[in-house]
Amino acid sequence: MTEDVARRRESVPGRRGLRADAERNRERVIEAARAVFAQQGLDASTNEIARRAGVGIATLFRRFPTRDDLIATVFAEKMRDYSEAIDEALADLDPWNGFCVFIERVCQMQADDRGFADVLTMTFAAAKAFEEERDRAANSLTHLLQRAKAAGRLRADFVHQDVPLILMANAGVVTATRDAAPEAWRRLVGYLIQSFAAEVAQPLPDPPTPRQMYRALLRLSDTAE
Amino acid sequence: MTEDVARRRESVPGRRGLRADAERNRERVIEAARAVFAQQGLDASTNEIARRAGVGIATLFRRFPTRDDLIATVFAEKMRDYSEAIDEALADLDPWNGFCVFIERVCQMQADDRGFADVLTMTFAAAKAFEEERDRAANSLTHLLQRAKAAGRLRADFVHQDVPLILMANAGVVTATRDAAPEAWRRLVGYLIQSFAAEVAQPLPDPPTPRQMYRALLRLSDTAE
Repeated sequence: MTEDVARRRESVPGRRGLRADAERNRERVIEAARAVFAQQGLDASTNEIARRAGVGIATLFRRFPTRDDLIATVFAEKMRDYSEAIDEALADLDPWNGFCVFIERVCQMQADDRGFADVLTMTFAAAKAFEEERDRAANSLTHLLQRAKAAGRLRADFVHQDVPLILMANAGVVTATRDAAPEAWRRLVGYLIQSFAAEVAQPLPDPPTPRQMYRALLRLSDTAE
Repeated sequence: MTEDVARRRESVPGRRGLRADAERNRERVIEAARAVFAQQGLDASTNEIARRAGVGIATLFRRFPTRDDLIATVFAEKMRDYSEAIDEALADLDPWNGFCVFIERVCQMQADDRGFADVLTMTFAAAKAFEEERDRAANSLTHLLQRAKAAGRLRADFVHQDVPLILMANAGVVTATRDAAPEAWRRLVGYLIQSFAAEVAQPLPDPPTPRQMYRALLRLSDTAE
């Protein structure tokens, strides 16, 4: 658990004394909020979240006095998962292996949880609460890429924006094959990772600019199914 | 224009004498049908198609006496585009270049027309009208892959099912970046094509079986947005 999360949990009144059913309600609200935010964006109605969670609106407000509390809680977990994936990749003594495992892991997260990428991208929209964590993750990712390039294994023209590009492609396969061929995304990621190796690098079309990708991600979070 | 299309056009009563506005109505019905089929599948209501096209139901039935006429017209065009892309690839004297241009072209078709892959996959559901054309396209694709493998350029483990896998991944990028970074898909396809080269081939996760992919495609056509 990061310090931020620990601090936030402390700040929720009565958190320590919650009985089991209150804890269950809290988890249901978080789960419903995640689904509703992913479907409708951050402007989704709090009533809708309470309805989906099967709790009264008063219960919801008791656990999350403001919408920001709820957003922060929902996004903290995803953001933490993502940051942890980068940190673990950086802990790998083999920079290329660390990079490959990172790509596989975030794509696995997406396959396990359709909302993962949506919610991840929504951290842009919910920027204020996550500025620090997001900047830390971005810096770590830069370090991860630099390290794998310095080792001569990751192609030099791989850029930051390629990571959301991979997630968008993976989302297409995950969505289409979830029921009939749930492991199909592994094949796509297998191909992609092989194409990222420095030794095979041929010229590529330019990536989207960081600004274009940022706009695409913002738009995604506006229109997430 | 293929013979089939010419024959079908001849068989529509009064087709030759259609005035410009009747022709416009016909085009609007086809366009509306394409969109509605893509959203709701082949069982979509004919009334809905007429409404979307802004024409009366009588006008629709005058142009397309049966639902099958409409389905055949809508799908013929896409199927023809797809078949032509394979034929042109086969006409390329360089088997690897032909293959690469084919992949880029179908991904371009998808970028130009969101419904392309949906409608293409729907030819499975509308199988009767297209069995022959579809089998011909499948055989041509087999030939295209074999030829590129025989030339030692396409990796030996590339299979038929990888083509819809590419289209699914491309769809994810196209959908997410259409407005903000409409050329982003080219970067994905650039990476993928480099990973298909025989000289870089490393072991890969297994592809979905043909049956799994078929089921995934059928499901897509059931649930296309």
